[in-house]
Amino acid sequence: MSSASRPPAAQPSGPQPSGPRPPAPQPSGPVPASAPPASAPAPFTAEDYRARMDRAARAAADAGLDGVLVAPGPDLVHLTGYQPPAATERLTLLVLSADQEPVLVVPTLEAPDAEHAPGAPALTLRDWTDGKDPYAVAAPLLDVAGRFAVSDNTWALHLLGLQQTLPSTSYVSLTSALPMLRAVKDAAELARLEAAGAAADATYEEILNVRFSGRRENEVAAELARLLTRFGHEQVDFTVVGSGPNGANPHHEAGERVIERGDMVVLDFGGLKHGYGSDTSRTVHVGDPTAEEQRVHDVVREAQQAAFEAVRPGIACQEVDRVARAVITEAGYGEYFIHRTGHGIGVTTHEPPYMIEGERQPLVPGMCFSVEPGIYLPGRFGVRIEDIVTVTEDGGRRLNTTPRELAVVD
Amino acid sequence: MSSASRPPAAQPSGPQPSGPRPPAPQPSGPVPASAPPASAPAPFTAEDYRARMDRAARAAADAGLDGVLVAPGPDLVHLTGYQPPAATERLTLLVLSADQEPVLVVPTLEAPDAEHAPGAPALTLRDWTDGKDPYAVAAPLLDVAGRFAVSDNTWALHLLGLQQTLPSTSYVSLTSALPMLRAVKDAAELARLEAAGAAADATYEEILNVRFSGRRENEVAAELARLLTRFGHEQVDFTVVGSGPNGANPHHEAGERVIERGDMVVLDFGGLKHGYGSDTSRTVHVGDPTAEEQRVHDVVREAQQAAFEAVRPGIACQEVDRVARAVITEAGYGEYFIHRTGHGIGVTTHEPPYMIEGERQPLVPGMCFSVEPGIYLPGRFGVRIEDIVTVTEDGGRRLNTTPRELAVVD
Repeated sequence: MSSASRPPAAQPSGPQPSGPRPPAPQPSGPVPASAPPASAPAPFTAEDYRARMDRAARAAADAGLDGVLVAPGPDLVHLTGYQPPAATERLTLLVLSADQEPVLVVPTLEAPDAEHAPGAPALTLRDWTDGKDPYAVAAPLLDVAGRFAVSDNTWALHLLGLQQTLPSTSYVSLTSALPMLRAVKDAAELARLEAAGAAADATYEEILNVRFSGRRENEVAAELARLLTRFGHEQVDFTVVGSGPNGANPHHEAGERVIERGDMVVLDFGGLKHGYGSDTSRTVHVGDPTAEEQRVHDVVREAQQAAFEAVRPGIACQEVDRVARAVITEAGYGEYFIHRTGHGIGVTTHEPPYMIEGERQPLVPGMCFSVEPGIYLPGRFGVRIEDIVTVTEDGGRRLNTTPRELAVVD
Repeated sequence: MSSASRPPAAQPSGPQPSGPRPPAPQPSGPVPASAPPASAPAPFTAEDYRARMDRAARAAADAGLDGVLVAPGPDLVHLTGYQPPAATERLTLLVLSADQEPVLVVPTLEAPDAEHAPGAPALTLRDWTDGKDPYAVAAPLLDVAGRFAVSDNTWALHLLGLQQTLPSTSYVSLTSALPMLRAVKDAAELARLEAAGAAADATYEEILNVRFSGRRENEVAAELARLLTRFGHEQVDFTVVGSGPNGANPHHEAGERVIERGDMVVLDFGGLKHGYGSDTSRTVHVGDPTAEEQRVHDVVREAQQAAFEAVRPGIACQEVDRVARAVITEAGYGEYFIHRTGHGIGVTTHEPPYMIEGERQPLVPGMCFSVEPGIYLPGRFGVRIEDIVTVTEDGGRRLNTTPRELAVVD
């Protein structure tokens, strides 16, 4: 795909976590009465996985590609439910093509694990033993002069092995060729995203009751992590607490600063629950805010509401950003809104589509993304408000529904 | 490098962990009186890192390459002490070449972290901001038609970006081009490997005191993990407990089987302490062994001793395997010794050089590798004995020194 049609490079929206953090410590303790029920969602079926693999193969064909090659990672989990026991130099590769059945190349050592993947009934396994050339095993599955999308995090070792074995093949990264591959969620996925959003909301409701003043940011962050876990997240990805001037730095996470009376505090937290992402932000104030602080918060709240109301199928992603940015600019704070309005969410907490100037991709029902404008006054304070929003047939629906007013905390 | 000169594909030696497991749970509790002192080793200096980078650049030149490109992972840690905060799609790449200073390409967002890496004084940082093309930033550092070794786990996204920006460049995986890059340890690294070996030895001494019979393998494995951690490992990579017939399967790790009186039990455990690997195996017996069990153990012990005594600079790696295998074959058990004799160890617990038929690489002082022959009688029991051995100027030196006799446990 020519670079002219590549999606815009990722711009930060809000803080820019670079990927999942190591899981937060797993606390024990009673679950508060207000916790959502702890039942697990219905498992995805082999048919679900087959449908996703078929969609991927067709999307590749529509993009002029001969197939899609997927190494272990979020895309492989999404397409097959399979995650190998540990990262290894041995080749595991899913080969999808519009004109053949899906094949998963796996080391013989790991074939028993692959056979138990939920998507295994929709796959053919092709195993290879130590001492064999795995690229020679994979090669017959590929057109000798074909063009393939390859998952971004595939090891160079494997890409070079394929390139050396089939010198006439060419490759393009999956996120540049098929950026929207995971963008449209099916009903079962939406249910999980709703549950993750509800658990993040329960976390926010509880955090309002803790003491803020006199505590370090990282102590409050640890509370957020504990609550996310208590409400069912198996992985905590980020727990941002930006107090006072730290809130003016969207990349600040949570440090040693002691929160004080009079501080504005940006809270931004999320992770994975049953494999699907949550991500929400609210800004609170320790004691009563000044008139200016209330004003800045009102502007962000209005921008976030306007952007949400703009969401409908058919508008460009960039339009969501433009609507939020216009509200903030008209209020005189345009130069302090220093990041994109949103990012997609699914099996990862940050993925396409991005709500950013230059992204012309139209919204499609089933897309899920954050709407998180902010205003950042250097050295003073910041405000950000974020909900995950899904596109419906005729508009948008929020997956985070806690009150958006400026809450006063202790 | 032509495939004819590629090192032999990795064969299992002993169990084949595919990489680090998630860290074992971190227990608390008093440290036994016999624990080694808990002082941290002297940190590596910028000069240490500069020397490693220079060696790598020279090795590349000797191999006919124009440079070495290293993405985040164990090789980057080894060469610079730098590990980015989290895996991300943003390009971080170390560029080494015999005719220029080392340059680390980093996202601007992560430059502060890179600046604090212990090897940073030996590097030039070249940062790039979101929205820029990182491959265009890296390209001027590379010969336009050069041939580069690239670290195996570099994302395909980045390799494709470089290939597209510099179409006349060619690439070869780092472990095939420079398999011995981390093979020769400097004195500071050897000191850390010794300390890791001592901590694994302390773990073995303690495990002999726990109850085995009536307990599940995974309970004993949890004890091993607890002890490794107590003796200073920050990461536990594997805790194999192969009791009775499970010991005959070198890939068996630790399961639900309840250990019984009369069982032979293979113990194989290790991880990272201060960033360097430990790995040792001993085989114990619950109650007195039969004459046959004692005999099989004696054969393995003799093979392990003979292989150790063979270690000296200049002999081929395969010779170490041949010596162990000859002892076992002469005793009539050759067909039951079903894996290679050893693997290297350093910043990872499994790395080149491998003690395997076909590996002609000569031993060099400073190399560290396991010597771990075994005999596996299907459905009955297994025996393995493993020490880490380093090559000295005139022979070998063990980094694991616990008794190798068949210990009787409860």
